[in-house]
Amino acid sequence: MANLSEEARRYSRAHAERFRQELHEMLRIPSLSADPAYAGEIQRMAEWLAAHMQSIGVENARVMPTAGLPVVYGEWLGAGPDRPTVLVYGHYDVVPAQMEDGWHTPPFEPVEKDGKIYARGATDDKGQLFIHVKALESYLKTSGSAPVNVKFLIEGEEEIASPNLVPFLKDHLDLLKADVCVISDTSMRSMEEPAILHSLRGMTYLEIVVQGPSDDLHSGLWGGAVHNPALALAEILAKLYNPDGTIAVPGFYDDVVPLTPEERAMIAKTDLTEEEYKRATGVPAVWGDRRYNIRERISARPTLDINGMWSGWTGPGPKTIVPAKAGAKISSRLVGNQDPHKIFTLIKDYIELLTPPTVTVDIKLITTGKPALFPFDIPEMQAAQRAYEKGWGAAPVFTRGGGSIPVVAEIADLMHIPVVMMGYGLDDDGLHSPNERFSIEMFHRGIETAIVYLEELAQLAR
Amino acid sequence: MANLSEEARRYSRAHAERFRQELHEMLRIPSLSADPAYAGEIQRMAEWLAAHMQSIGVENARVMPTAGLPVVYGEWLGAGPDRPTVLVYGHYDVVPAQMEDGWHTPPFEPVEKDGKIYARGATDDKGQLFIHVKALESYLKTSGSAPVNVKFLIEGEEEIASPNLVPFLKDHLDLLKADVCVISDTSMRSMEEPAILHSLRGMTYLEIVVQGPSDDLHSGLWGGAVHNPALALAEILAKLYNPDGTIAVPGFYDDVVPLTPEERAMIAKTDLTEEEYKRATGVPAVWGDRRYNIRERISARPTLDINGMWSGWTGPGPKTIVPAKAGAKISSRLVGNQDPHKIFTLIKDYIELLTPPTVTVDIKLITTGKPALFPFDIPEMQAAQRAYEKGWGAAPVFTRGGGSIPVVAEIADLMHIPVVMMGYGLDDDGLHSPNERFSIEMFHRGIETAIVYLEELAQLAR
Repeated sequence: MANLSEEARRYSRAHAERFRQELHEMLRIPSLSADPAYAGEIQRMAEWLAAHMQSIGVENARVMPTAGLPVVYGEWLGAGPDRPTVLVYGHYDVVPAQMEDGWHTPPFEPVEKDGKIYARGATDDKGQLFIHVKALESYLKTSGSAPVNVKFLIEGEEEIASPNLVPFLKDHLDLLKADVCVISDTSMRSMEEPAILHSLRGMTYLEIVVQGPSDDLHSGLWGGAVHNPALALAEILAKLYNPDGTIAVPGFYDDVVPLTPEERAMIAKTDLTEEEYKRATGVPAVWGDRRYNIRERISARPTLDINGMWSGWTGPGPKTIVPAKAGAKISSRLVGNQDPHKIFTLIKDYIELLTPPTVTVDIKLITTGKPALFPFDIPEMQAAQRAYEKGWGAAPVFTRGGGSIPVVAEIADLMHIPVVMMGYGLDDDGLHSPNERFSIEMFHRGIETAIVYLEELAQLAR
Repeated sequence: MANLSEEARRYSRAHAERFRQELHEMLRIPSLSADPAYAGEIQRMAEWLAAHMQSIGVENARVMPTAGLPVVYGEWLGAGPDRPTVLVYGHYDVVPAQMEDGWHTPPFEPVEKDGKIYARGATDDKGQLFIHVKALESYLKTSGSAPVNVKFLIEGEEEIASPNLVPFLKDHLDLLKADVCVISDTSMRSMEEPAILHSLRGMTYLEIVVQGPSDDLHSGLWGGAVHNPALALAEILAKLYNPDGTIAVPGFYDDVVPLTPEERAMIAKTDLTEEEYKRATGVPAVWGDRRYNIRERISARPTLDINGMWSGWTGPGPKTIVPAKAGAKISSRLVGNQDPHKIFTLIKDYIELLTPPTVTVDIKLITTGKPALFPFDIPEMQAAQRAYEKGWGAAPVFTRGGGSIPVVAEIADLMHIPVVMMGYGLDDDGLHSPNERFSIEMFHRGIETAIVYLEELAQLAR
């Protein structure tokens, strides 16, 4: 089998130039999901991708409708039912981009410069998802076969929070059935430090509004006997954390899976010094729960942050009112196995408990996302580790992502399979920003790593 | 002398209709001080007033320039140097008004209906200042003389915070020299409850901005090791008050003149029940320093209020950031003898003391105003009390105003004279609102009270 992957890797090197030209074709289609005016481009992109898959030997490649923008599906099941099946998830939609935002070249006219491909979607996610298409092609065009079965699920609504993906998953569980899901839609710090994400934080996002008087009051005529709602809100918010940097909401940590010594050792490999954190963020001093190192605090531990706050007069100069209301947006980043809805209830109950009789409070749930946590000692993760060692040329670290990609937890929950996040972006690729770029070397090393990963997955027990 | 005032009061009743027509003339001039486009109308108003004063026997009536909009000055010194001099302060400028705001009739076409005159400026302050002009006319047109000397200082920038009044006062201290100042620019609760204001609260208004990271951060990538500046601000603000409703700023109360038993007995006459306060404001419960009754808290005690607060994302839906900054506008209503600049320093020092090393804080003074406090047992106040008893027909209460009229403290400080605030508005006159109105009965009873006040002032020792 080593010969097959060697042959495939050689093919990928021989066709590197063409692979990039095909990626350019993809990048030329402005497949914006946020703007209904681009529905035609979305359709064109989906059809291009389905046709391209078909051209390289993917079977049943097709554009499938959802209640929103379509999904592109394709499969190659030639490895047979005794071999594992990997589901590749990606997205072909992009966020908007305009020259006026500060692009040096037109965002939908890809340019190669200084070892990078510049274009909207280059790294997020067209370049990264294409890696897997080209890996499969490299097998099929050499030995006519791949070590495992491969299914592709490429959606078109990732950048607008995937509103129709869960219904699609639920409706097509049989079609999508697989043993492991691989997603390339994240990044590494540098080419020498490849990373496999095995965890993402979830989210509970809520809004709290404290009301005092029915309307803004003249502070001279009424001030002194009314509990200022901005003060009442501040008093409530000030009790969200304990002085030691832990969250004061009763029961908040109850379901948190403790970090094992192995995990802490793995996380320590990517820890940041206080100086590094200060330099990256501009804060005058680091803060938080000192029982955990900085990387643990920002990726492996739950948080509770105020995302926004408002009350009364915020324009220039003085306005002497006692505001009628004060509000805050609050969100908690969750870790396994915290349940977003349970956390909402705990926070709500706690805030209501803190609210004095001098004001009223209204608490609304805005959105939730489940956390995702996969052990990194499972075979699917270990196979990925070996793929980097052999295909990339460097051992990866297993990292926890501090952010949230809701689809990861949804796939894990609905399909009962682990999700391996092999990100081929770089932290400074400028995704969602002007001059988004993707490293050409990353693209080609990624394809070789993906080729080896398929081979390593073949060893999985079925 | 009683005969003279009787004659003057009769004259005022006989010419009531004309007095109102003249007031209508004033109200027809849209003397907006906030809008430079109305500079011509301001000038027309000032000239009309000077000419009108001259026509009734006021001497040296004239429009005097300032660095901004002009002052109207006039005097009648015929009582002679052995008699006291009263300085009448008022303002001829008004705030903007447009039909679209909800006026039932054009704001600058006065209409009499249901015993009220409807027009912008009717109560604030054209109708009220005109009372004193008509009181003097009533003397001069009957006996040819008044019991005391009278000076008028009518400014045109009150509604834009009197930016040029203090320089004008300083430049004309000799011209304006008087024994007492009377201002009619406030209100009473009902016609049966006339009130003399003997105190106003001052103000220290400041802005505080807490900065954490140099820019908004992605809460997933960085949250957990940064002290959220909105949280830090909330923690600071929550420490402004002690749990017993007193202000926690060290030294804050040091210069407060304690309320005497006589003052507390006077204030008790206008106290509000908890139910009344709740009904008026809509708050679910009354708050504050329980050692003082509600009226004391809202008028005779200092306060510290959050007037506005902002941080991060306040639009609809979720945005998962750790904001770079959080800010608040804070103002303190001050009572005698608190010094606004000293209070600013105390608050600033306290906030800086509370600020942890994880964030930085910037504290800016926005504006100040001195409190004003005159004892109500002085002859000038007692004369006003008698004027209400005889001229109005009801004994007034002495009250403390919770708001701030900075000019009152400035006149007291610069001229070393007490300021007696005999307000003839009603609390529901709708000043600064659509359909501003002034009670016709109030206008005429006010003139008779002002007539008697001049007579009562004549008894003052010189």
